[in-house]
Amino acid sequence: MSQATRGYAAHSPTSALGLFHFVRRDPRANDVVIDILYSGVCHSDLHTARNDWGGTVYPTVPGHEIVGRVVAVGSAVTQFKVGDAVGVGCMVDSCHSCGACAKGWEQYCENGMTGTYNSTDRIDGSPTQGGYSERIVVRQEFVLKLPQNMDLKGAAPLLCAGITTWSPLRHWNVGAGSSVAVVGLGGLGHMALKLAKALGAHVTLFSRSAGKEEDAKRLGADRVVISTDRSQMKAVSGQFDLIIDTVPYAHDLNAYTATLATGGTLVLVGFLGQQEPAINTVTLVLGRKAIAGSVIGGIAETQEMLNFCGKHGITADVEMIAMQDINEAYERMLKSDVKYRFVIDMESLKAQA
Amino acid sequence: MSQATRGYAAHSPTSALGLFHFVRRDPRANDVVIDILYSGVCHSDLHTARNDWGGTVYPTVPGHEIVGRVVAVGSAVTQFKVGDAVGVGCMVDSCHSCGACAKGWEQYCENGMTGTYNSTDRIDGSPTQGGYSERIVVRQEFVLKLPQNMDLKGAAPLLCAGITTWSPLRHWNVGAGSSVAVVGLGGLGHMALKLAKALGAHVTLFSRSAGKEEDAKRLGADRVVISTDRSQMKAVSGQFDLIIDTVPYAHDLNAYTATLATGGTLVLVGFLGQQEPAINTVTLVLGRKAIAGSVIGGIAETQEMLNFCGKHGITADVEMIAMQDINEAYERMLKSDVKYRFVIDMESLKAQA
Ligand SMILES: [Zn+2]
Ligand SMILES: [Zn+2]
Ligand SMILES: [Zn+2]
Ligand SMILES: [Zn+2]
Repeated sequence: MSQATRGYAAHSPTSALGLFHFVRRDPRANDVVIDILYSGVCHSDLHTARNDWGGTVYPTVPGHEIVGRVVAVGSAVTQFKVGDAVGVGCMVDSCHSCGACAKGWEQYCENGMTGTYNSTDRIDGSPTQGGYSERIVVRQEFVLKLPQNMDLKGAAPLLCAGITTWSPLRHWNVGAGSSVAVVGLGGLGHMALKLAKALGAHVTLFSRSAGKEEDAKRLGADRVVISTDRSQMKAVSGQFDLIIDTVPYAHDLNAYTATLATGGTLVLVGFLGQQEPAINTVTLVLGRKAIAGSVIGGIAETQEMLNFCGKHGITADVEMIAMQDINEAYERMLKSDVKYRFVIDMESLKAQA
Repeated sequence: MSQATRGYAAHSPTSALGLFHFVRRDPRANDVVIDILYSGVCHSDLHTARNDWGGTVYPTVPGHEIVGRVVAVGSAVTQFKVGDAVGVGCMVDSCHSCGACAKGWEQYCENGMTGTYNSTDRIDGSPTQGGYSERIVVRQEFVLKLPQNMDLKGAAPLLCAGITTWSPLRHWNVGAGSSVAVVGLGGLGHMALKLAKALGAHVTLFSRSAGKEEDAKRLGADRVVISTDRSQMKAVSGQFDLIIDTVPYAHDLNAYTATLATGGTLVLVGFLGQQEPAINTVTLVLGRKAIAGSVIGGIAETQEMLNFCGKHGITADVEMIAMQDINEAYERMLKSDVKYRFVIDMESLKAQA
């Protein structure tokens, strides 16, 4: 099988993404070759394409919410067969030997997990390239099984947005009787609402502006609290066991920590940077509260989430786009003009002359 | 029994503490009357005396590390008898009906616990006055039993410094195999070393300057890491399950969060205020780490700590002073010139003409 592959790559921080020809490796014994059907569009894709975090090696093919079908397997692959519907998320490898990996926390691999794109293959040192492409080759331990009958378009965002919110919900033991709040209603936030609700929690959406009530309730919120309204915020003082904060920029956390119950945790899943304005520790100390962070989730945890979603009929709300629309989609994403995740139909790339 | 009582009070934010005559209430049915033998000197005493946090009502008698003997009990008191060696910590009452109180978290009482001083009695509305005095009257639920044969002078600081460090050690499940670090070697820090070591943890002291090695090891540290030495800090990157940070002023936390293991928590027990410099969330998010706070501990937890200390022969390292030396002791405390806690011998007050 020829591994010549077409993808859409960023070639510099400032140029539009465009067609890029590259070669996927021939499958090793434990590799799975996946024909990509759908690829979700994550904010990280855009940040990497534009080198917002530094460290981008060009050309880079983004995409780490990958859904496809197995078209070939290596000789040692036991978990997958040709024709299986599968997913690949943000990681394609890790060290398999550190304490974190031993716990199934590959995302926190002490030797650094291998990202699906803009990373380096652990064996041959080649750059990894993501899901904005026709096919991908991934070792079987990092390939996820999609439940039967799951809508494959809506499944793609589960691989990043889904697991990013699932992992903290599970780590902080959310279940029936829990009181959970979600800050921000985007790709991550809308998944947090769905998953928290299905786990049995009472779910609140914090929103800066009115008008999201109907959507939020459809997605799983029991109520919406306008975070800019002091009286509404005061009314929910001391209520939440867990707040999942999906906001991707620096913002004031003090109004939110005041709404945590004693012993509660606000977990940041969207913001990487300097926390300003300053955190007031009084609320933390006098209420044994915590501000924590969390990133994606482990492989076993991701499979657990997919199985849970299959059982509960959960997928993301998506807007389908063609590969050729990606640059426009990025601009819309920057304006939060998407409900709630763009997903690329990879047929559009395959059909490109 | 006459409840006319002498104490040392602050009469204004700027005046020295001096003799103050007041009347303790006659014991109610469930009250215990305690003749005070020793009273530890906590930073909170000084902050309250000088109105550093606002809200001080003068005159105020500080002191919430109280050890004494029962001299009378109300008709409904079942837990104590005359002659018992007892302790009183930072609280003398709480609502007994909220969710926090139901869990034994009286320190987080949703209706506000009643402080041992500078607070208001829940029944008669009188101001509470603390341990820098001859006697105190406290409802039995907030009186602690001191283990037999415990050194009573060194026991006093357990009631605040001890429980303040014990509670997070227990809440975050420190035991054999845990790796714990302590920031700051003062009243709180020296108790954290002793308690963490006795719980079976591997214990590290972070210190800004050299010269504390011998003391730290005697108190329970397995090693000392100089926090201003980059290479020493780098050598302990990713190591600690729990960091107990006792520093009472704003300070940079980012160097410490880097030394937390994945999933680890830095818990602030000494600083109330604006956290500056800003927290970098990258370390938190990419390592599922948390910054939390904690204040004292519940009553049952305090009794547990006292019993543990009795079993393990733990008390605080104290420097005894006379009541009349309190103003000088405050000045020395501000310079951290005490190893590691001042304790007032209340005989000195009783002997005052
Ligand atoms: Zn992503
Ligand atoms: Zn690893
Ligand atoms: Zn204290
Ligand atoms: Zn209460």
